[in-house]
Amino acid sequence: MTVSKTAEKSSEKPGDAAKGRKDAAEAQPEVLQLGELSEQLGYVLKRAQLKVFENFLRCMASLQLTPAQFSVLLLVEKNPGRNQTEIASTLGILRPNFVALLDNLESRDLCARIRSTNNRRSHILVLTDKGKAVLTRAKKLVATKHEARLNDLLGQANREALIEMLSKIANEF
Amino acid sequence: MTVSKTAEKSSEKPGDAAKGRKDAAEAQPEVLQLGELSEQLGYVLKRAQLKVFENFLRCMASLQLTPAQFSVLLLVEKNPGRNQTEIASTLGILRPNFVALLDNLESRDLCARIRSTNNRRSHILVLTDKGKAVLTRAKKLVATKHEARLNDLLGQANREALIEMLSKIANEF
Repeated sequence: MTVSKTAEKSSEKPGDAAKGRKDAAEAQPEVLQLGELSEQLGYVLKRAQLKVFENFLRCMASLQLTPAQFSVLLLVEKNPGRNQTEIASTLGILRPNFVALLDNLESRDLCARIRSTNNRRSHILVLTDKGKAVLTRAKKLVATKHEARLNDLLGQANREALIEMLSKIANEF
Repeated sequence: MTVSKTAEKSSEKPGDAAKGRKDAAEAQPEVLQLGELSEQLGYVLKRAQLKVFENFLRCMASLQLTPAQFSVLLLVEKNPGRNQTEIASTLGILRPNFVALLDNLESRDLCARIRSTNNRRSHILVLTDKGKAVLTRAKKLVATKHEARLNDLLGQANREALIEMLSKIANEF
């Protein structure tokens, strides 16, 4: 494994010596050896996850949706009328973060909290018409720009094997 | 894919009805359908990564090392005498977070910042004797408790394929 792109990006441009001794000393950094780190599951998982999230955000720039917001919209669409505690728990999002996330979606008229008729202290979540339309566009962007790129990189069979192994880890590790 | 353990954990215990209507209404939540979400790479990556980090922290409880701290110790051991900017960049850790992380490692006498002789504004990182000893113990714990569990779950060949695919994503996506 070679050094990450983050390291490449942060290196100084050659020939930019006017900025002084500090830059000169760091102008030609040798690539660091990752050694055992490149075999640590947690490390490669985190690096891959950051890269995938970065790409997701770029693909979704026109709709301004984060991976977590997209997950919430997908889950509410698939499970209409469930309360916000259930949606947050299923996604593993902590309550304060989830409230902030919902405030954002609601302020953009993508989703609405409705007081439950069974339990007035509970709120069920529904997509608005605008939310449904945005989600349809988001799914297309994800499929054609984001997931398609993964298929190109790994191939369809490997992609499926990867998802299966990751799901197994998420559920059984 | 079934609902996550987070959701199971957050569900109310049956028979605990004394807490009132809210609990009663949420006592037997039906499992939510993940639908397309279970096929989203970003989602399964994040869930797997959280699970692996949780397990790492449990395995490392006696040494009180986080995944990021372990990565820094491994990288400094493999690349002695490199400066903190290079270590942080290679790991993709932002500067303020990295400074806090180093402060913690230094306060526990695991690593030391030494002013570079080439560039007095730069600090190189080295492991202390205690840091080397702790890292040796940490590697054993990771290998025997953490990575071994992954081998049991996936099998050696699948584990290697998984690391390879994740590295490819981290480097090329």
